[in-house]
Amino acid sequence: MKIDRKRLEQSIEELGRIGETPRGGLTRLALSDEDKRARDQMVAWMRSAGLRVSVDQMGNIFGERAGTKALPPVMLGSHVDSVPTGGKYDGQLGVLCALEAIRSLNDERVSTRHPVTLAIFTNEEGARFQPAMIASGVMAGTIALEDAYNARDRNGIRLVDELERIGYLGAEPCVPRPIRAYLELHIEQGPFLEEEGRSVGVVEGIVGIAWSRLTFTGVQDHAGPTPMRVRHDALVAAADVVRAVRAIPARLSPEMVATVGRLDVSPNITNAIPGRVSLSIDLRDPREENVTRALALLDHAVTDAARAEGVRCELEHYWRVPPTPFHPEVVGADERAAQSLGVRSRRILSGAGHDAQYMAAICPAGMIFVPSRNGRSHCEEEFTPMDDIEHGANTLLLAMLDLTQ
Amino acid sequence: MKIDRKRLEQSIEELGRIGETPRGGLTRLALSDEDKRARDQMVAWMRSAGLRVSVDQMGNIFGERAGTKALPPVMLGSHVDSVPTGGKYDGQLGVLCALEAIRSLNDERVSTRHPVTLAIFTNEEGARFQPAMIASGVMAGTIALEDAYNARDRNGIRLVDELERIGYLGAEPCVPRPIRAYLELHIEQGPFLEEEGRSVGVVEGIVGIAWSRLTFTGVQDHAGPTPMRVRHDALVAAADVVRAVRAIPARLSPEMVATVGRLDVSPNITNAIPGRVSLSIDLRDPREENVTRALALLDHAVTDAARAEGVRCELEHYWRVPPTPFHPEVVGADERAAQSLGVRSRRILSGAGHDAQYMAAICPAGMIFVPSRNGRSHCEEEFTPMDDIEHGANTLLLAMLDLTQ
Repeated sequence: MKIDRKRLEQSIEELGRIGETPRGGLTRLALSDEDKRARDQMVAWMRSAGLRVSVDQMGNIFGERAGTKALPPVMLGSHVDSVPTGGKYDGQLGVLCALEAIRSLNDERVSTRHPVTLAIFTNEEGARFQPAMIASGVMAGTIALEDAYNARDRNGIRLVDELERIGYLGAEPCVPRPIRAYLELHIEQGPFLEEEGRSVGVVEGIVGIAWSRLTFTGVQDHAGPTPMRVRHDALVAAADVVRAVRAIPARLSPEMVATVGRLDVSPNITNAIPGRVSLSIDLRDPREENVTRALALLDHAVTDAARAEGVRCELEHYWRVPPTPFHPEVVGADERAAQSLGVRSRRILSGAGHDAQYMAAICPAGMIFVPSRNGRSHCEEEFTPMDDIEHGANTLLLAMLDLTQ
Repeated sequence: MKIDRKRLEQSIEELGRIGETPRGGLTRLALSDEDKRARDQMVAWMRSAGLRVSVDQMGNIFGERAGTKALPPVMLGSHVDSVPTGGKYDGQLGVLCALEAIRSLNDERVSTRHPVTLAIFTNEEGARFQPAMIASGVMAGTIALEDAYNARDRNGIRLVDELERIGYLGAEPCVPRPIRAYLELHIEQGPFLEEEGRSVGVVEGIVGIAWSRLTFTGVQDHAGPTPMRVRHDALVAAADVVRAVRAIPARLSPEMVATVGRLDVSPNITNAIPGRVSLSIDLRDPREENVTRALALLDHAVTDAARAEGVRCELEHYWRVPPTPFHPEVVGADERAAQSLGVRSRRILSGAGHDAQYMAAICPAGMIFVPSRNGRSHCEEEFTPMDDIEHGANTLLLAMLDLTQ
């Protein structure tokens, strides 16, 4: 049994037009008008495929294909939101390959023992509302529903109000429930599969992630008449931290990554010494103890930078997810599927967080990666060749069939 | 003859309410609704003081008190726009002390040979439209009217459209014309007068200023699965430049200042490696050759940072004003005025640009400084004690009388 490559390709193109950027990328922020349109499209396709569609309190969308027994479903999922000027593969591809796998079951009139459920999770990216993967976090019981509802975007708009506005504030409780297995196809977002000429990555787990936010408060002043000797420049201290964060991985682990992705200056004009700078720090490593060590180095770097420039600092380690090993049963199913298809594959760790990370807390979970050209993602240049997508989707289909037995 | 301290204090309080921030500062961006209201208030007061009010093509407002002869006027001026979350003294104080000086002439029914004109210049700060002092620049013939009209704010709104919207697109040509002298009272914005316990600074000139803008373009990518070895992070390069700019003055001149005041990151989210960063560089020194040397050091630092991180750079030195010496006749009048009042004063250089800088190209020009508490300005904490303001305003009044003879 195989998926229909042409149908899958058409779905990718069609859904990719919703929120498309002039340069061929995607801006489809969570719970925006574009997100709503993409959700509406998915719901329409899910209904056409005969799925029973439901929406939960977090706006997660589920489409169930009944099994022959009243058993917990095998869930295939991902997300349709994107980062600003992101690409057309991150998230969307997993949802569409899952839909294609289900359509293929329909084509062949295959019955499965366990039901199969397609899941679309709300606000996976964390680009608009923090933290990322907020809705699978609620489902896993890790994030309180009320906290998620009160998450605000940069304009102060609450997540729950946007859910309601776009018509996806569902009634179904967003709580843990019996799930046979959770399986997510996703782009690798790194360079390894492409470098090694492999179509499929059998994901063994996800690295540990720590997010911190930092604010330096110096003395806002006029850039002209304020002598260098009396300055307390929040941006100078921030520059020290950007350099220090960049240097952390080399001191601790070859697999560690460290990034300052967001930095906001106030008042942010040419002729004023920055009085306040806030910035984000993202640290990841496969080993929990390395993340802990990195946070300690960050603490030191921030204190040193603040002292050197005479500015105040507030550093908050506000989000942390330990490394997540995926379930041997799901990893095994993925591996057998790839092998039976004769697809070149390898085991791999995910450097990015995914909804599968939270799902792993409540059911056997796993992921399948397909390559990212030049390792790039979260950008308009994001691309995966259709040959690899086809291999990945077939691997997903077979692994799902395996798990529904 | 003396100014009326109480009346001046009331005017400062009243005008300061227009655009007041919750913490007692001022946000009154050029050509905003707040700027319009402040202009309307000034025009009303100028008319009450019997001045003939006119508005030129750049929205500069002039209020003329006739002299006994048809001679060029002595012009007293400053501005009413502010930076975001700025203070209530920068600009506004000069305009109100000028108004108070004219009101005092009226009180005493003093006639002057030369007319006296109060001038309010458009967009002095450069916080909304660049470059700063755009309207005196047009008046001096340095900036083309069309270029000024086409200056756009961050939202792409043109200066000329905002002039029209708020009703200050006047008909009078904005061109050089005969002016007996231009005199501007302003806050020092630096620490020297306060440190030395002096009420008045007799400004000898303005330092040279160079503004540059820089954009680094790296590779936007996901902060998780992208190994450190393949990164081209625009913010890391920018951090190098922030540090390098901070280090330039120590290498060249004790009077030099160097500032990165604006820095914008794209896409500016926690889990994306910054693909693009743009920032501003502000360099100032009393000696032109030092500014030139600083720009050369900046060029090197930018090239080095771009090479080290493997990112592209675009550096543009887009605005430069040479050091401006003020006219001995005006400096002398200021100094005699302060001495005759028995006010503690000193000669001083201005580290900030002012409209007086452009006016110096078309007439004898000078400035009077009053102290800034803790040397601070362009912030809500901006403050000048009323005793110093009174001394400064009286110095302005006497110097103006001297020049109108």
